[in-house]
Amino acid sequence: MVTRLHDPSAHSFASDNYSGAHPEVLQAMVEANGGHVGSYGADPYTRRLDEVVRDVFGEGASIDPVLTGTGANVSALQALVPRWGAVVCAASAHVYTDEGGAPERLGGIKLLTVPTPDGKLTPELIDRQAHGWGDQQRPQPLAVTVTQSTELGTVYTPDELRAVTDHAHAHGMSVHLDGARLANAAASLGVSLRAITRDAGVDSVSLGGTKNGLVLGESVVTFTEEARAGLVFLRKMDAQLVSKMRFTSAQFLAMFEGDLWLRSATQANAMATRLAGALAVLPGVVVTQPVDANAVFVVLPAAAVEPLRATHHFYDWDRQTGEVRLMCSFDTTEEHVDRLVADLRALLG
Amino acid sequence: MVTRLHDPSAHSFASDNYSGAHPEVLQAMVEANGGHVGSYGADPYTRRLDEVVRDVFGEGASIDPVLTGTGANVSALQALVPRWGAVVCAASAHVYTDEGGAPERLGGIKLLTVPTPDGKLTPELIDRQAHGWGDQQRPQPLAVTVTQSTELGTVYTPDELRAVTDHAHAHGMSVHLDGARLANAAASLGVSLRAITRDAGVDSVSLGGTKNGLVLGESVVTFTEEARAGLVFLRKMDAQLVSKMRFTSAQFLAMFEGDLWLRSATQANAMATRLAGALAVLPGVVVTQPVDANAVFVVLPAAAVEPLRATHHFYDWDRQTGEVRLMCSFDTTEEHVDRLVADLRALLG
Amino acid sequence: MVTRLHDPSAHSFASDNYSGAHPEVLQAMVEANGGHVGSYGADPYTRRLDEVVRDVFGEGASIDPVLTGTGANVSALQALVPRWGAVVCAASAHVYTDEGGAPERLGGIKLLTVPTPDGKLTPELIDRQAHGWGDQQRPQPLAVTVTQSTELGTVYTPDELRAVTDHAHAHGMSVHLDGARLANAAASLGVSLRAITRDAGVDSVSLGGTKNGLVLGESVVTFTEEARAGLVFLRKMDAQLVSKMRFTSAQFLAMFEGDLWLRSATQANAMATRLAGALAVLPGVVVTQPVDANAVFVVLPAAAVEPLRATHHFYDWDRQTGEVRLMCSFDTTEEHVDRLVADLRALLG
Amino acid sequence: MVTRLHDPSAHSFASDNYSGAHPEVLQAMVEANGGHVGSYGADPYTRRLDEVVRDVFGEGASIDPVLTGTGANVSALQALVPRWGAVVCAASAHVYTDEGGAPERLGGIKLLTVPTPDGKLTPELIDRQAHGWGDQQRPQPLAVTVTQSTELGTVYTPDELRAVTDHAHAHGMSVHLDGARLANAAASLGVSLRAITRDAGVDSVSLGGTKNGLVLGESVVTFTEEARAGLVFLRKMDAQLVSKMRFTSAQFLAMFEGDLWLRSATQANAMATRLAGALAVLPGVVVTQPVDANAVFVVLPAAAVEPLRATHHFYDWDRQTGEVRLMCSFDTTEEHVDRLVADLRALLG
Repeated sequence: MVTRLHDPSAHSFASDNYSGAHPEVLQAMVEANGGHVGSYGADPYTRRLDEVVRDVFGEGASIDPVLTGTGANVSALQALVPRWGAVVCAASAHVYTDEGGAPERLGGIKLLTVPTPDGKLTPELIDRQAHGWGDQQRPQPLAVTVTQSTELGTVYTPDELRAVTDHAHAHGMSVHLDGARLANAAASLGVSLRAITRDAGVDSVSLGGTKNGLVLGESVVTFTEEARAGLVFLRKMDAQLVSKMRFTSAQFLAMFEGDLWLRSATQANAMATRLAGALAVLPGVVVTQPVDANAVFVVLPAAAVEPLRATHHFYDWDRQTGEVRLMCSFDTTEEHVDRLVADLRALLG
Repeated sequence: MVTRLHDPSAHSFASDNYSGAHPEVLQAMVEANGGHVGSYGADPYTRRLDEVVRDVFGEGASIDPVLTGTGANVSALQALVPRWGAVVCAASAHVYTDEGGAPERLGGIKLLTVPTPDGKLTPELIDRQAHGWGDQQRPQPLAVTVTQSTELGTVYTPDELRAVTDHAHAHGMSVHLDGARLANAAASLGVSLRAITRDAGVDSVSLGGTKNGLVLGESVVTFTEEARAGLVFLRKMDAQLVSKMRFTSAQFLAMFEGDLWLRSATQANAMATRLAGALAVLPGVVVTQPVDANAVFVVLPAAAVEPLRATHHFYDWDRQTGEVRLMCSFDTTEEHVDRLVADLRALLG
Repeated sequence: MVTRLHDPSAHSFASDNYSGAHPEVLQAMVEANGGHVGSYGADPYTRRLDEVVRDVFGEGASIDPVLTGTGANVSALQALVPRWGAVVCAASAHVYTDEGGAPERLGGIKLLTVPTPDGKLTPELIDRQAHGWGDQQRPQPLAVTVTQSTELGTVYTPDELRAVTDHAHAHGMSVHLDGARLANAAASLGVSLRAITRDAGVDSVSLGGTKNGLVLGESVVTFTEEARAGLVFLRKMDAQLVSKMRFTSAQFLAMFEGDLWLRSATQANAMATRLAGALAVLPGVVVTQPVDANAVFVVLPAAAVEPLRATHHFYDWDRQTGEVRLMCSFDTTEEHVDRLVADLRALLG
Repeated sequence: MVTRLHDPSAHSFASDNYSGAHPEVLQAMVEANGGHVGSYGADPYTRRLDEVVRDVFGEGASIDPVLTGTGANVSALQALVPRWGAVVCAASAHVYTDEGGAPERLGGIKLLTVPTPDGKLTPELIDRQAHGWGDQQRPQPLAVTVTQSTELGTVYTPDELRAVTDHAHAHGMSVHLDGARLANAAASLGVSLRAITRDAGVDSVSLGGTKNGLVLGESVVTFTEEARAGLVFLRKMDAQLVSKMRFTSAQFLAMFEGDLWLRSATQANAMATRLAGALAVLPGVVVTQPVDANAVFVVLPAAAVEPLRATHHFYDWDRQTGEVRLMCSFDTTEEHVDRLVADLRALLG
């Protein structure tokens, strides 16, 4: 028997993937175990997931489970644009900055980046890269990808998303949404997952599970046949096809069951709000981005950074300004937050 | 709560990924859950796995968990050969026939194939493609990949492997081993995992877990710094880096703990041997390959194929000859085997 | 001034790219020189070439000049099939054996090969690889590529081509033709270039110029909008877009002017026929393939090979059987042929 | 015979590839024509070019001719960095903005961009992207590429280059130089080609010929075995290997013969200087970049732009500011310059 090697009471503000899995998720995997079922998706859990996804996103929606967020983004974008297509994104987008060049190298997709103040694209920002159609020397901008919630912890309203998708579609561009933290955005806005994807005009979504309490589960959710064209072949080609898919699908079923996704995201968001509120009133502390979801971006007094980091763990965001990122997870509690705030207050004297 | 949607008593001879996970594997994941640990491999389970792998394969061995067998093969081969390298493989190799073109398209690796009678390469067979070094118009053959056990259920002896690796190294080629079913080969030969990899001169191994009873776990095991050069970067670029790696590592720990890998493989192999033995004496049945591991290749009387398949599930291997493949899993029992044989006997009258 | 460094009377049977350029081709480049014109195809020579190609291949035909045969094949195939497409070809096809892995690595195209006796595909041969549509683990066979004349010096009749294209289209596959030596095939058959491409149902052609007497000029000729979709963007992405395109287009204009292509190909073919006829009657000499175009495949008495090669230059084709390849060029003369035959006769005693 | 279809007295300031070829270049091709020589570089012109390049750049220098500037950059960078390498470049670099995504998609190279005021990198600017070595989620910065002269018409001094190469080497990064207009830089500085490449610490150069008066000729010049490792295989794989290489090599021989490269570049530069000087004194005209080479960047009075463009042809550089680019070629004359200035003066009243 494998024995526990870690302290299950440890907590960190480093990332929402430092947390483990929600117990209901592991329980679902245990239920799905035993006996033989078809592999590569030909199993009753994956079939049930198809139904659930149609319930959540409406008729015509499809889900194709994959293995990593990078894989979801690459396969989804490859399905959206032909070989000569390029994709407009924010310069801060995960797909551009944090995926080891996979979109370009694995996916063959040129990313056209736009600097943004808050991680959010607008029609005006998109236009800085959305031009040159027909110019044989320019990678053709044929899609836009947005992140919801963004890498900066901000959230697009449904109207902001609609402005982006209307603008993109008017120029013949599809719209992909990187939803590694889609649940946090929906919880923050108090709307359904559908309201900020399909109903806002999005064509294709990387729907994340891992940061919302799964062991390991990402997926591509598409709303049109065009957005899904070739996707299952691309998934295999991109090394994202899992053989015992029943276990991935069972995790997603757990996530949708009893709105676990919403409970988890609501908790993480609430803790971020509590944290930001307590930090903002401390001397020398500046919260630098709106706290729409489960991330707090903040500049701390320099002397306090390393002592605080030693206990509570967090990442630098901008070494020049001293900005750090504090992430809350589904299992972050008021006690975790309050302890950090108390420790910082003590450090500040 | 997610409810069970399948019959846990169902069995199939279709593939060793139709089976679920060994209960000890799921239990290990439960142990690894709770609290926060570092992501992307900075956790105590992955550190412990490093130690275990050095115990199993000797000092200097390294393990890098990935997500799919395709991913393991692509990343391992990319690390072994530069951009201009090509890889010699059997024409029946999974990497050539069953990975959706991922090695070529995701990995940028030209595969140079050789037909074989039994899925096994030899120095003579390798030489059919291992030539043309320095010829600027030929992809440079800089590695050989073998499969152990092979796609045809055969197993290389340590001496056969050594002949291949000596030959390859003498020509400046590295040797990769696709070990999706390495455990079955070791169990069949009654030797250690090390004896048919590192000690046989292999440089790099795709060590499979999923077909041996994991939920989802593959890895690249390397024995030299050269074979591992760049591997962690390639893993990310190939969308194979899992964030909550503790769960993958815990599964592998379970596999090594108490020699679970050997118990599982031995059972699967024994069932294949039992099955082949019983089939071989039936009229009109021809076992077409040596049954070294957990696969039985067999030509059945035509009239019996579809009725038998309806109950026991298996895949066609060669539609022209009527050859089918019957795979045994860690949880295949004597009862499963005997029932198939009885059903076939009844069909044959 | 650059001085001549070679012997302009030297001749070789090694390849039809050992020859230089037809003087009319160089003269066309001189005519196109001087002053400024638009680059990247916006010049009067490229516009005129568009007209000429419509004259030759009919309304709706388009030509896009590129730089190498490999580049032509890769760009043409990328335009024909989406990212998940695979292409069926003969195992002897240049695109599979002689392009450094460029189709797979540069183009991301999985090639599905079929052994053939004479380099020519048939519907039956195509069917060995044309299956598995919808199977998510199989690269999808969405195109067929044939070579005309083939790497073995054989030529498809229009009816043979039509059988291939009808079969491919019936299965939803497009057809590409690698026409590095298309002129030789047309000259051999006594038909137009159109008769063995567009009129035979081909969708897209790599139309070669270099082996027919150009300095450097290849192109993709397409007959439908679908076959040309994205081609100009792919050409740039594949590093095949020449800036001073006037010079490439002028060469192709010279090739079409006064049917220079036909004169050159007819001469090369006639010399191959003369050569094969004279060789076939010599003792111990076996001509191994039909001599339909400008190549002669032949097994020579072993003792004669190296002495003959020293003077006349040629490549081994199959070292095991002793088969060699003798290529004739547009500037091969009866004297060149007769001298080789005389030398061989002398060597044979 | 192909007849002339253009006006050889036409001139344009649009690009230095609107010009044709220098007559000495075409004459060299005529000299190299006739008879048979080895293909793919096994010819006396390519051998002679090897010698000339060693004369120009010193012992150990090698030249490998390719077909396009994009191809030169991609192959050179692929040889410099392994699959997991990334390359730091200016955000304005041709390799990033103007090559259709070829470096990323054909080359599999992640480009890490830095905004610059004048197209030139410095150690400080490089450091904005040169970090994160060993971080498995970051493409590894293993090379820097600079452009000389830059896309903005500016030129690095030898000392500026040395600062870049020393800094890069100190961090284990190689240095590539995109020398599509290297001749213009050397002519501007009054130094040898070697002084601003090898002697300044550069490892590998894309040496351009086309913009300096060749018909079609680019190349990769390397100074170490490491920088050339695999280059000839990559050249083929990137569809950059020309069969009748004698014609490409002969053009480069013409370029070096009698310092034609210097005569051509000096003329182009002088015309740019003359043009900038005359423009700078006109009312409402602002020259926006130092005129170090053959390009003039200038903001013109808005009303004058379109009438002037109709006769003299030039490209917009920044539509928001009204900045346009005027390029001079080897065959731009004082009369061409003076006519533009006179026309502008007339337009300004």
